[in-house]
Amino acid sequence: MSQHHPLTLLKLGGSIITDKDIPMSLREDVLADLVRQIADARNYLAKNQEQLIIGHGQGSFAHMPAAQYKTMGGFINEESVLGMAIVQDSAAQLNRLVVHACIRHELPAVTFAPSNTLITRERKPAEFFLSLLEAYLDKGLWPVTGGDVLLDYEQGCTIWSTEEVLAYLAIELQKRQRSVKRIIHVTEVPGVLDETGAVVPRLTPENWPRVKKAIGRTKGFDVTGGMLLKVEESLGLLKHNVESLIISGLEPNNLYQALVGKEWRGTLVTAR
Amino acid sequence: MSQHHPLTLLKLGGSIITDKDIPMSLREDVLADLVRQIADARNYLAKNQEQLIIGHGQGSFAHMPAAQYKTMGGFINEESVLGMAIVQDSAAQLNRLVVHACIRHELPAVTFAPSNTLITRERKPAEFFLSLLEAYLDKGLWPVTGGDVLLDYEQGCTIWSTEEVLAYLAIELQKRQRSVKRIIHVTEVPGVLDETGAVVPRLTPENWPRVKKAIGRTKGFDVTGGMLLKVEESLGLLKHNVESLIISGLEPNNLYQALVGKEWRGTLVTAR
Repeated sequence: MSQHHPLTLLKLGGSIITDKDIPMSLREDVLADLVRQIADARNYLAKNQEQLIIGHGQGSFAHMPAAQYKTMGGFINEESVLGMAIVQDSAAQLNRLVVHACIRHELPAVTFAPSNTLITRERKPAEFFLSLLEAYLDKGLWPVTGGDVLLDYEQGCTIWSTEEVLAYLAIELQKRQRSVKRIIHVTEVPGVLDETGAVVPRLTPENWPRVKKAIGRTKGFDVTGGMLLKVEESLGLLKHNVESLIISGLEPNNLYQALVGKEWRGTLVTAR
Repeated sequence: MSQHHPLTLLKLGGSIITDKDIPMSLREDVLADLVRQIADARNYLAKNQEQLIIGHGQGSFAHMPAAQYKTMGGFINEESVLGMAIVQDSAAQLNRLVVHACIRHELPAVTFAPSNTLITRERKPAEFFLSLLEAYLDKGLWPVTGGDVLLDYEQGCTIWSTEEVLAYLAIELQKRQRSVKRIIHVTEVPGVLDETGAVVPRLTPENWPRVKKAIGRTKGFDVTGGMLLKVEESLGLLKHNVESLIISGLEPNNLYQALVGKEWRGTLVTAR
């Protein structure tokens, strides 16, 4: 057994905390309510010696310049270097708003920016500074991370989605003897929907091929893939013993219920 | 000789880019003018294959909570962890404003946050992620760093001033075969002043003991030491062959003149 506290990785979706149609527009009320639910769960988490890593999507912040400058593909023209800078700035601006919302609830939230702690080569991890993430956790701080633009030794830069960041962190933290229990994806939809529009409560490698056909394009503006990517990352994490919850952040107290182990509504991605 | 471009490290003082009496208050006009001067020097720097690292002081942003929570001393009471988070947030908010001002002049400025790239033990460097800084430079990005709160393995956290950050980077970059030519300190005063109030144009290890007596308390709100610290860091860097310029950022185009090798007004800290 690990001497470290078990971890929940929490993704606040970009489509739920930002207004997807208006550049750089925060849905302050939604963010504040989600952070309030996290803060309400704080005592429960402390009592159970659990810790959280919060990640947020980029919604109408970094996705827009990332699409404009095709930042995922790297330095493709003479505007790309400035484009990378603009994407980092947009991502970091939203990160500040999320951190600040946490601080207003007296959560000791600190930025853990992938753009400052991870370098890739052809989009694969090349160098990283995860000792900082571990040190933050060990000191009782609440890391706040998210999708970001990364320096890439080969192509100049790239984008990692919040899903990619959290999946990477889950696997790396487990290599470091830290137990990652689960990833909770807080979205604007009730979960993964079947062909009738009903929520699929349990999604497994067995029923996925059938459910997959029903998943269309995710609502919202997202250069990094939406629900399909979310589920496929989640299925990939099952072999690392990490389950995923895909839940609505718009249903009252649904996130709180999930955090404190009470009944929640949404989709559980699980091995069987 | 190094195959890397020679570097100038530039400190924008916290007392000049923020209003020292009002919390979280940017002097937008001053910052914009300084960044305009940097942008004007861009072609000169490119032609001479020089690169810049910009650092900014924290002025009325992070200094205020850092003083309130005594963050330099670490986790000293039950409020310290939240205090650390508040200090990081304040520092990062100013960093965003500086980066954004650069981007408005089409400089590809990116955050290089000491809080995300450096861990200390008893205030000394323990782990760092300087490969990112090097990669930023090699890709033509303009790193923007500054004083920050650092995770400290022993005392929980600490503060490094912008001077400490830049001095550390200068020495580490030289170890990595990068040539650091000079550090330019942009302040609200005309330079180091003697007992008559006149600027000392050349400050050397020889005349320092005499000049030191004339330095009183620096104007402005600064938990990390002011002019005395600035000069002593600068003198320490002479043995690494790094000269320092201490100049006024309020005299028209003075920073531009210094950047492009023309006549500037202020104090040169030099070996002889």
